[in-house]
Amino acid sequence: MADPVGMSLSSLQEMLDSPLFAAWVRDLALRVAEVRPGEVHLALPVTARHVHGGGVVCGQTLMAAADTAMVLAVSSQLGGFQPMTTVQLQTSFLRPVPGTDTEARVIARVLRLGKSLAFGEIEVHDASGRLAAHSTTTYALL
Amino acid sequence: MADPVGMSLSSLQEMLDSPLFAAWVRDLALRVAEVRPGEVHLALPVTARHVHGGGVVCGQTLMAAADTAMVLAVSSQLGGFQPMTTVQLQTSFLRPVPGTDTEARVIARVLRLGKSLAFGEIEVHDASGRLAAHSTTTYALL
Amino acid sequence: MADPVGMSLSSLQEMLDSPLFAAWVRDLALRVAEVRPGEVHLALPVTARHVHGGGVVCGQTLMAAADTAMVLAVSSQLGGFQPMTTVQLQTSFLRPVPGTDTEARVIARVLRLGKSLAFGEIEVHDASGRLAAHSTTTYALL
Amino acid sequence: MADPVGMSLSSLQEMLDSPLFAAWVRDLALRVAEVRPGEVHLALPVTARHVHGGGVVCGQTLMAAADTAMVLAVSSQLGGFQPMTTVQLQTSFLRPVPGTDTEARVIARVLRLGKSLAFGEIEVHDASGRLAAHSTTTYALL
Repeated sequence: MADPVGMSLSSLQEMLDSPLFAAWVRDLALRVAEVRPGEVHLALPVTARHVHGGGVVCGQTLMAAADTAMVLAVSSQLGGFQPMTTVQLQTSFLRPVPGTDTEARVIARVLRLGKSLAFGEIEVHDASGRLAAHSTTTYALL
Repeated sequence: MADPVGMSLSSLQEMLDSPLFAAWVRDLALRVAEVRPGEVHLALPVTARHVHGGGVVCGQTLMAAADTAMVLAVSSQLGGFQPMTTVQLQTSFLRPVPGTDTEARVIARVLRLGKSLAFGEIEVHDASGRLAAHSTTTYALL
Repeated sequence: MADPVGMSLSSLQEMLDSPLFAAWVRDLALRVAEVRPGEVHLALPVTARHVHGGGVVCGQTLMAAADTAMVLAVSSQLGGFQPMTTVQLQTSFLRPVPGTDTEARVIARVLRLGKSLAFGEIEVHDASGRLAAHSTTTYALL
Repeated sequence: MADPVGMSLSSLQEMLDSPLFAAWVRDLALRVAEVRPGEVHLALPVTARHVHGGGVVCGQTLMAAADTAMVLAVSSQLGGFQPMTTVQLQTSFLRPVPGTDTEARVIARVLRLGKSLAFGEIEVHDASGRLAAHSTTTYALL
């Protein structure tokens, strides 16, 4: 298990803005708000491009933000980026994030970092702090 | 249970291109390739915007395509769009979709359509027809 | 949403020992250890009957305990038993529970109780307090 | 990837009845009904011990049968038992299995067998052949 040396907020933001992530994912414009080893908080701006006909942020956006946040959380615990791949991600949608919110908050936590597998969970909160989506995920470290 | 009257390929494509889906999701440029009541096949173009630093289509794109395809599959079985919301979606990533593929195939099937809940599964195949991602999902009909 | 009036520890234990649960599930010999509205802690005795050839508690036992605990957690928030059914349950297995442990701890929490759906998560801790299994689940209230 | 040499029905039944599985799981009295490399069909007898107060087979039984069936399916593709552990298992419950059924059918299929991870899906059908539960799972090969 990697020593939880952590990563700075600015180095995680650089990672987030780099081609490590697909351009379509970088369009989420996620912003690193808080970090400690194994835990990363991101701000997800709510913009019209992510709101569907029902007037709420689409689930696709929330799942994409959750998966992205977990890459950063695992990296923050490893002390730097290391190739990894999502094995599975399960998301439950508890409440919609209103399209009128300014931003949502995405909190990713590593629950266990093994030699070859990492387990984590991600919460998405709306602007009022209510739990909107809840993901659990397994990553393979390559 | 709704009578499986189905929907035409062109009316599903219209739905796909309408603001029912968020603009960011419409950027996937999904194309309806095949449809029967309760089952929809979509072509997912592989473009540079969806490929991450590892040279493969990012998982966020595959999950977004899977969720989108299921909305169409449920609608195709209902015989038209009806408000619905994703309750949960679980995706397993079996193999990467190479960034050099021209397109992937997304196949969504309704496994059960109840009065208030719909269950389905979605497969994403790479251009060689190999299973790349496999999702199961529950929708609530509103 | 039901008023979180709660249920007493003894009334939950009675429910647990009643034919509401299948006899095979009652063989788990779960014991209610702690309760507040929407959260229930159970003790899961580790016995030879639940340990597989690898010397650890089998995953089947952990999933069964998790599902059972959530029925109690939802009931505790509703203030009494009400017919409900598991829609889906996803479990990640982070670490084995050693067959030499005396008991494991199962903690179920309701994350959201809606009119027709309830969402929750369940943690199973080994005797040393380490997270062994983590479930998320959706229930339908009938 | 292991050569799909397969295993005989009787050697899988022997495995099923051995202490590889916990005694509590062997109480399910599962019977191997059909096998080919990577796919195993089990008969799950419906008995009063597995039926809950609602008059249907409890979900705990269906999840336990699903997990057990996948161990056999992976073994059948490997050509013999090899230590493995369930990483995650997600089950959707589509329809109850009536307590009046004589037996249910459990069908496990390996979707991909890699060097360190195996992916699969399991269907549980009631006696009328209707899909009652649907699981997807990831295993780690040790």
